[in-house]
Amino acid sequence: MNIPSKESIVAAHERIKIYIHHTPVMTSKSIDEMAGCHLFFKCENFQKVGAFKARGAMNASLKLSPEQRIKGVATHSSGNHAQALARAAKILGMKSYIVMPRTAPEIKKRGVRGYGGEIFECEPTLEARESTLAEVIKKTGATEIHPFNNYDVMEGQATCAKEFFEDAPGLDFIIAPVGGGGLLSGTALATKYFSPSTIVMAGEPELANDACRSMKSGKIEPASPPTSIADGLLTSLGDKTFPIILENVKEIITVTDEEIVAAMRIVWERLKIIIETSCAVPFAAVLKDKQKFAGKKVGVIFTGGNVDLNKAGKLFA
Amino acid sequence: MNIPSKESIVAAHERIKIYIHHTPVMTSKSIDEMAGCHLFFKCENFQKVGAFKARGAMNASLKLSPEQRIKGVATHSSGNHAQALARAAKILGMKSYIVMPRTAPEIKKRGVRGYGGEIFECEPTLEARESTLAEVIKKTGATEIHPFNNYDVMEGQATCAKEFFEDAPGLDFIIAPVGGGGLLSGTALATKYFSPSTIVMAGEPELANDACRSMKSGKIEPASPPTSIADGLLTSLGDKTFPIILENVKEIITVTDEEIVAAMRIVWERLKIIIETSCAVPFAAVLKDKQKFAGKKVGVIFTGGNVDLNKAGKLFA
Repeated sequence: MNIPSKESIVAAHERIKIYIHHTPVMTSKSIDEMAGCHLFFKCENFQKVGAFKARGAMNASLKLSPEQRIKGVATHSSGNHAQALARAAKILGMKSYIVMPRTAPEIKKRGVRGYGGEIFECEPTLEARESTLAEVIKKTGATEIHPFNNYDVMEGQATCAKEFFEDAPGLDFIIAPVGGGGLLSGTALATKYFSPSTIVMAGEPELANDACRSMKSGKIEPASPPTSIADGLLTSLGDKTFPIILENVKEIITVTDEEIVAAMRIVWERLKIIIETSCAVPFAAVLKDKQKFAGKKVGVIFTGGNVDLNKAGKLFA
Repeated sequence: MNIPSKESIVAAHERIKIYIHHTPVMTSKSIDEMAGCHLFFKCENFQKVGAFKARGAMNASLKLSPEQRIKGVATHSSGNHAQALARAAKILGMKSYIVMPRTAPEIKKRGVRGYGGEIFECEPTLEARESTLAEVIKKTGATEIHPFNNYDVMEGQATCAKEFFEDAPGLDFIIAPVGGGGLLSGTALATKYFSPSTIVMAGEPELANDACRSMKSGKIEPASPPTSIADGLLTSLGDKTFPIILENVKEIITVTDEEIVAAMRIVWERLKIIIETSCAVPFAAVLKDKQKFAGKKVGVIFTGGNVDLNKAGKLFA
């Protein structure tokens, strides 16, 4: 596998097209007034499995050899990639083995089981996830599809920004959240290939600011303790995602958990759509750093909408 | 004013087109499996002011004479019509005077004020609303735009079903909620004119089942005490809406508040969109009476998405 090229991203989009939604781009006059810029929201919360992860998991699964398909796929994931991979496996008639931290939202575990995925629970640390996954792979012979540090996954995630540029041309900025960097690196590549005048930005929780620290130090910094409510953005960058981000992303803006909840609330109230905490991070960043985006056309990737309503209700109480 | 004709509804749609959203129709494979039929959701929660009421208020306001416009418009409304009329007035440079029960959700009051509407609070009874409105009209000379018992409003609401039939042809059923009956009577007329083979149904809260009782008794029954959480559906029918409903609506299905919350939760979780309690009523009715809709193409009008998140969170806790 190589760094995705322009041609390979175009091919990936063709490959996955019939398995994913072409998600809509939403706009809101009242939010534009509030933010002082022209916002375009790419609604991957309406994507299959409720998140952009459907793209990368589907692309990587479709690229497996017949021999690999027989043994199935495995991964560790805090949530949406787990569901996405289980779904891709189900569609292609493969087994899927999913290592999940026991703290992962119940709605995401239910989703995995609904697609016939077999769950292996572990402690919510990277070490526990990796060692549990290694055991599972040893036992099953399944192919690991890493949630982000995998060029086929990155190539699939890149199709989101490609579609975005097709539907909302002329963006001055595109901004995505960053956890492991699969979406962000894919977005950066798609921008370079399909809309090179657009500036790539990212939003990150202040309580999980390892990507921001990595950009400053020039090397991959370890993840912060998992305290942010943005539970999809707690992992550190990978050696495949980091160099692409370092080279192509202009800036990572960090936001507090309070700013994340406030931004999420605006989206629920004004756009009338459900987005999850991690998904609200780039929009929170735009609201925080208004002068940077003033008067510009800003494309925000809404990454997912898998919310545990029992928990989310309390955020707004 | 007369009962809206086919031609007048077509003209209304042309008249209001530039002031309203052409809202999307959503579908969901997982919800179809759950419901056992093919569901099409007309998303008026994405409409201007977050509800279909933008249509009727705009249409009625646009039909006022220059003399009437000078004195402005007035109404009493528990919520969405209030915002819709304030918005229409603002666009046309008129004053708007809105009588609202003091118990109306704060988000809806804020919305009215945001459009420059002047609010007059009153007790949450029909008598208090009517007497307060009469005083306001006496003082200002404003024209009353009733939230539902007004043919121009009905004509505007009818454009929702017209649009729905254009985007989702061949519906076996169309189902809307019923409060005062403005949307339902407009939907019934639009169905008669534009999709006569479609059966018109309605959903109503069991705790506010006056329309269902009226259909049985053949006369307008008074509203129940305002206890249902479906706060947009607490009023009784009007003498303009009732005859049309009696003649053209096949059946009104009533649902409990628990069934309303359960249906709303499914929509938030699966469709990833925000709908308000009143809006969940017809979908709750479809889920309750599955055998009636089994295998059919069912169009559900999602009426609005103006939710007080502080309250809504508690519903799911």
